[in-house]
Amino acid sequence: MRAVDIIQKKKEGKTHTKEEIDFLVNGLMNGTVEDYQMAAWLMAVCFNDLNEDETAYLTEAFINSGDILDFSDISNIVADKHSTGGVGDKVTIALIPLLASLGVPCAKLSGRGLGYTGGTVDKLESVPNFVCALKDDDFKAQIKKIGAAISAQTPNLTPADGKIYALRDVTATVDNKALICASVVSKKIASGANVIVLDVKYGAGAFIKTKEDAKSLADLMIKIGAKLNRKISAVISSMEQPLGTHIGNSLEIIESIEFLKGNCNKDLYEIVFEITSYTLVSACLAKDYNEAKKMADEAIKSGRALQKLREIIRAQGGNEACVEDYNLFNVGKNKFELKASSSGYVSKLDALMIAKACKLLGAGRDKKSDSIDFGAGCILNKKTGDEVKTGETLLTLYWNNISDEKVEEAKECAQNAYEYSAIKPKTSPLIYKEDCRF
Amino acid sequence: MRAVDIIQKKKEGKTHTKEEIDFLVNGLMNGTVEDYQMAAWLMAVCFNDLNEDETAYLTEAFINSGDILDFSDISNIVADKHSTGGVGDKVTIALIPLLASLGVPCAKLSGRGLGYTGGTVDKLESVPNFVCALKDDDFKAQIKKIGAAISAQTPNLTPADGKIYALRDVTATVDNKALICASVVSKKIASGANVIVLDVKYGAGAFIKTKEDAKSLADLMIKIGAKLNRKISAVISSMEQPLGTHIGNSLEIIESIEFLKGNCNKDLYEIVFEITSYTLVSACLAKDYNEAKKMADEAIKSGRALQKLREIIRAQGGNEACVEDYNLFNVGKNKFELKASSSGYVSKLDALMIAKACKLLGAGRDKKSDSIDFGAGCILNKKTGDEVKTGETLLTLYWNNISDEKVEEAKECAQNAYEYSAIKPKTSPLIYKEDCRF
Repeated sequence: MRAVDIIQKKKEGKTHTKEEIDFLVNGLMNGTVEDYQMAAWLMAVCFNDLNEDETAYLTEAFINSGDILDFSDISNIVADKHSTGGVGDKVTIALIPLLASLGVPCAKLSGRGLGYTGGTVDKLESVPNFVCALKDDDFKAQIKKIGAAISAQTPNLTPADGKIYALRDVTATVDNKALICASVVSKKIASGANVIVLDVKYGAGAFIKTKEDAKSLADLMIKIGAKLNRKISAVISSMEQPLGTHIGNSLEIIESIEFLKGNCNKDLYEIVFEITSYTLVSACLAKDYNEAKKMADEAIKSGRALQKLREIIRAQGGNEACVEDYNLFNVGKNKFELKASSSGYVSKLDALMIAKACKLLGAGRDKKSDSIDFGAGCILNKKTGDEVKTGETLLTLYWNNISDEKVEEAKECAQNAYEYSAIKPKTSPLIYKEDCRF
Repeated sequence: MRAVDIIQKKKEGKTHTKEEIDFLVNGLMNGTVEDYQMAAWLMAVCFNDLNEDETAYLTEAFINSGDILDFSDISNIVADKHSTGGVGDKVTIALIPLLASLGVPCAKLSGRGLGYTGGTVDKLESVPNFVCALKDDDFKAQIKKIGAAISAQTPNLTPADGKIYALRDVTATVDNKALICASVVSKKIASGANVIVLDVKYGAGAFIKTKEDAKSLADLMIKIGAKLNRKISAVISSMEQPLGTHIGNSLEIIESIEFLKGNCNKDLYEIVFEITSYTLVSACLAKDYNEAKKMADEAIKSGRALQKLREIIRAQGGNEACVEDYNLFNVGKNKFELKASSSGYVSKLDALMIAKACKLLGAGRDKKSDSIDFGAGCILNKKTGDEVKTGETLLTLYWNNISDEKVEEAKECAQNAYEYSAIKPKTSPLIYKEDCRF
């Protein structure tokens, strides 16, 4: 078998065998297939695609390239969730303590962010002293003890995906659904969970732009999960405007704490409850959405969910006092309130423009080595569909030490993120319900 | 400018600027563009192609990546030819002495062969002591002194093409016409010739399979030559069956010498005279094909062309006595005569099967580092259209030290190369004349 022949096959639109996919992926890892051969193959895949079998073979090859976590000695149910990413997406931080407080063991491996805002690991590190780099044994021990842990992904989990993702990133081969699916599903399966819910986001602030593309990616991931004997559910949700009201690392933790205290923005509530319900039903802990919702409401109302967050923070070295005292967080010393210049309704709030504003203020990074300012970000007072009066605050920007030029640019982005209408606009639902999988 | 954005642009089927092509090619040479980025771009080009302007930019970028030879102080006419490659293609060895004897200075840079049989450099090295690795100054001095030199290409001529060709070879991106064109035309222009004839071959024994593809590649190379102010002519010829009668390194030199002595197979005569005519007319040394043909016939008849071959061999250190004494060549000690098993006509002689037989006998190499047996090959007694009687010799195989298995395999290939018919088959012309460019 030769890599060049496998590349040629995909270039001609033919279908690979499992042996061919294994040859490429294993070859990349052991040095018999070169980076440039993989890059040429990835580009051929972008044009001629992979079918479901080939996608499953690729997913399996990624899984088998590294360690596979196993929690079967802890519980027969271990949950995990994954979001394809969006602006203001703090779902993990709100969801994991909630699920754990409901008796669902959660093994959550997260990443750092590249692009406009931080990833879950960055957000959690804005909790004073919180440690995300858990060793596999400590990760497992914590799940056994308190029912949940949130850790940065270890380098030896799906290393082939890591290597190929790095190649895709610089060869314009990121956007193929089969490649995205193999990358996401392999990581989730290698992480050892058996109840997996994916949050597939579409819209201005997501890398998937349309509902249809999100649905077809979700369908593919569910099918590939099934081929590999793993039950995967998916929620499809809009990312046209940011999720919730707070964007930025510390600010998103604060909003998550508020959520667990029962003070919650409608959008964030809706999506966390949706994923909670999927998980409880999949894990046979609730018989339907309504029962699941009642359980979740009760966990928040009783304070058990917030208590679980305290336990997680304590277990991972963080200062749990921050749950009561938000002054312990780095929140930008400087702020600017953007005011409405006329009255009417917010007809559009562009997630990407808000993300760009936060990035300019220091909330995101371009390269792994760039530093992030946990205190940078914004709080939205007005979202799509809200009524505004001239002079009312639309949002507040927060930052620490950045140049005046960047602040001005950020203000401009924030201003441009809003569009208005005279009459109340029709808003589309956050969650794509036609595709409900219950 | 970022490589990933340029790759994305071609992936989306957009058109590159000259600056973008230069950025990629120069970046590859100075290390700011990675091999894997170039490989992804090459694959995107295979799907979305380059237009004529982009192909010209790429050709220019290749030329400017290394040395550019200049013969303007020797002559205002310097000829070169290039063949896209075929089985039994000894045209260069017959043509260059002929052209030089007609007063056309020839600066011929040739390559070694990868695949079924040797390249021109390999063939010439079967002449005892012949040296092909000429330094630029010696190459030029020889052309000045005796009117012709045939040298191996120096590494600093179009090094970007060299690097990209090596990538194409292992990433299944060899067969795009724009990439082939840029590779061939850049080398010919950097070689300093100003009268360039391309021999574009199609059929079983060529990498271009159809006449139409050969014609469109030829048209493209002529257009790109014109864009870069170089007059390029092209001959389109069939490679369904091997060219001439002798295949293998020493054997092809012997056939070339016989040609210059006036003993010539019709096919070889036809193509050498066609290219000679194109060159003489392009160089304004003959007014038309007929005059050119008369001049060429006279150069052979008078012995001047053969004398020029002697001079070239002598100038490059070879033993010119081989021109008279073929025993000085390594010709396989072992031979096998393949006999016709029935009477009729040869309806097909498959060039690729003959090439495979010669490769098995030791005439070709897979890797640069493999050695070649100059003595391996075959002589064809019967070609397409010839009448055969049961028991007549179809061809003779020659070899030295190889395994019995390989010899048997070679015999089988040779046997399978022939097809027969009861009635005389209609043979198609060697040269595609409808496209005559005089």
